[in-house]
Amino acid sequence: MSDFKFTVHTSSTYCKARTGTVTTSHGEIQTPIFMPVGTQGSVKAIEQQWLKDIGSQIILGNTYHLSIRPGIELLREFGGLHKFMKWDKPILTDSGGFQVFSLKDLRKITEVGVQFRSHVDGAKLFFTSEEVINIQRHIGSDIMMVFDECTPYPCDYDYAKKSMERSIRWELRCLEAHKTQPLLYEHSQALFAIGQGSVYPELRKMCLEELCNHDFDGIAIGGLAVGEPAENMYEIVDKSTDVIPKEKPRYLMGVGTPQNILRNIALGIDMFDCVMPTRNARNGTLFTTTGRVNIRNNQNKNSHEPIDAGLDNALSQTYSRAYLRHLFMANEIVGLQLATIQNLNFYLWLVKTAREKINEGTFTTWANSFINEFYPETRVSA
Amino acid sequence: MSDFKFTVHTSSTYCKARTGTVTTSHGEIQTPIFMPVGTQGSVKAIEQQWLKDIGSQIILGNTYHLSIRPGIELLREFGGLHKFMKWDKPILTDSGGFQVFSLKDLRKITEVGVQFRSHVDGAKLFFTSEEVINIQRHIGSDIMMVFDECTPYPCDYDYAKKSMERSIRWELRCLEAHKTQPLLYEHSQALFAIGQGSVYPELRKMCLEELCNHDFDGIAIGGLAVGEPAENMYEIVDKSTDVIPKEKPRYLMGVGTPQNILRNIALGIDMFDCVMPTRNARNGTLFTTTGRVNIRNNQNKNSHEPIDAGLDNALSQTYSRAYLRHLFMANEIVGLQLATIQNLNFYLWLVKTAREKINEGTFTTWANSFINEFYPETRVSA
Repeated sequence: MSDFKFTVHTSSTYCKARTGTVTTSHGEIQTPIFMPVGTQGSVKAIEQQWLKDIGSQIILGNTYHLSIRPGIELLREFGGLHKFMKWDKPILTDSGGFQVFSLKDLRKITEVGVQFRSHVDGAKLFFTSEEVINIQRHIGSDIMMVFDECTPYPCDYDYAKKSMERSIRWELRCLEAHKTQPLLYEHSQALFAIGQGSVYPELRKMCLEELCNHDFDGIAIGGLAVGEPAENMYEIVDKSTDVIPKEKPRYLMGVGTPQNILRNIALGIDMFDCVMPTRNARNGTLFTTTGRVNIRNNQNKNSHEPIDAGLDNALSQTYSRAYLRHLFMANEIVGLQLATIQNLNFYLWLVKTAREKINEGTFTTWANSFINEFYPETRVSA
Repeated sequence: MSDFKFTVHTSSTYCKARTGTVTTSHGEIQTPIFMPVGTQGSVKAIEQQWLKDIGSQIILGNTYHLSIRPGIELLREFGGLHKFMKWDKPILTDSGGFQVFSLKDLRKITEVGVQFRSHVDGAKLFFTSEEVINIQRHIGSDIMMVFDECTPYPCDYDYAKKSMERSIRWELRCLEAHKTQPLLYEHSQALFAIGQGSVYPELRKMCLEELCNHDFDGIAIGGLAVGEPAENMYEIVDKSTDVIPKEKPRYLMGVGTPQNILRNIALGIDMFDCVMPTRNARNGTLFTTTGRVNIRNNQNKNSHEPIDAGLDNALSQTYSRAYLRHLFMANEIVGLQLATIQNLNFYLWLVKTAREKINEGTFTTWANSFINEFYPETRVSA
């Protein structure tokens, strides 16, 4: 019935890195992949044709935001988000869990679900497993995510355990809801589970073992990059990818810096998403093939250097850093566009290069040297 | 010496409309033309390649803004604005006069020039004819504008006369400064005069007759679209184009609505610039081939209609009005981009169609019917 498929091609000899292909109704995704975040049906500051031009293979939409604006009735009338936003490649939707749990003071969690208030008009909303699947069915994403609780950091063991167990129950209700409802549009939708358990390896293991007993199309690792030290994150990812069966795509949610991405690829992660490249672009922080650049910095004032000579992209090659700096100093919108294109292009270049190096058997050497030379910083993405 | 040339092709039998070609060192401009405004070295919200794709033949830069940011030293180091912003087609720079005179309480006018304060850091600045030419020489625009005083509306006769006479003296100093300095870059620069005289036809005539005695490459009509009734503007333009010799390109500064443009083409204007299409785009007001659209309006909520089915542009054809409305409601930057592209594309379509109709001999009929059907409003652009 489902068009969804995952095939592993090459696995590294020196680490757990691997290349593969995820197949969806809207085409293939070469992994490891970075997925630009398009919260409200638009990847901020970059139009869809440009997104394609820089090689985006899949983008994210956000269930919570899209359910509020434009709303599921309108999406249904348009035949789903792909048609509404004119994006014919794959879309993954998160479950809204992360956003709901960010609204700390505005929500109430029960076994049934979460009651909270809309950030737009304060209206009372109630998210349950069934509702979250229903919304994603109307969005028509190729990959849906289960509803879960993303615990904060730090989180005490008892709460992390209680929450993780409840998340599993919610996730199984999502699977049930997904299986028992007919397709809304003419393409199939996959469903990924999300492992939780905070920074406690035994909870993580317990959670993933249970989830992997069920028929999810892929497994995500959630609840990381929420403030924990980077080494905690790597430890949890390492132990998690040991538990998740090799034939399932593994998605690390909300991560991260270029270093985070390469190190997690080495730990066996196939899919990433993060607002870092797009959000930082709008603040004037560029990610380039030769490191981070604060474009507003005075040292770029007279720089004839292209935005990024290392990227095969007309815009990054054409415009000078001095010009881009000028656009930021003068608050010109085109600055946000150019910086966004640069950063996403860099992230897509990073995972593409990782795929090539894995296939060539030189990933570990290349990744270590690239990190040491250009991205030695150890922060975890916010 | 100069590459500048203007050739009239077809003149309408029923009105003063005409088609022509302006030749500059950076290529030809087919007139009547609309020139998108790129105040600070960027046409707001549209990247240069897109500007070209929608058929922009020439853009504006602003002398005052560019002198403050990025400054003339940097522009000189980059070899001028064309190279700095990577725009290889013609550029026209206004003289800064309009901006300086907008700073009502911050300036002091003397015979020598105008003292005022920077809107960025409050620094004291002094603009004279010689300085304004010097700045434009560093910018390297293909068409420079003289320094003048743009009088407000209303303006009493005595002040309008005194100011107009001083403007003429300033303009002749500009011409002198221009002729006596060598070229800074490898291309030539033309200089246009600006007629003033508020809404007094005899002052306008006096001013233009004097200016046309000198060797300016083109003649602009300034000081209009500053709050006067539309019929005043048309009367002044009509009388002005009777005075300006046919062989000079005529540029009406800061105008206007689609109706304003067509009616002024009928009165013999060749060149237009206005922030209307770009500024309105960012407020969600679209100009389309079937009239004005407030995209935020609730009636667009479910609209499957393309942004503008009448324009030969992938973006205007691809995206629905409902999607563009959603982007505006959700404050997405891509909404500003799509609306800007639509509006500039429409303005360029408007003048292109005007050129075709003039050449076919059907301009008057077409323009009247287009105005009546789609742009009957009588406002003058702000």
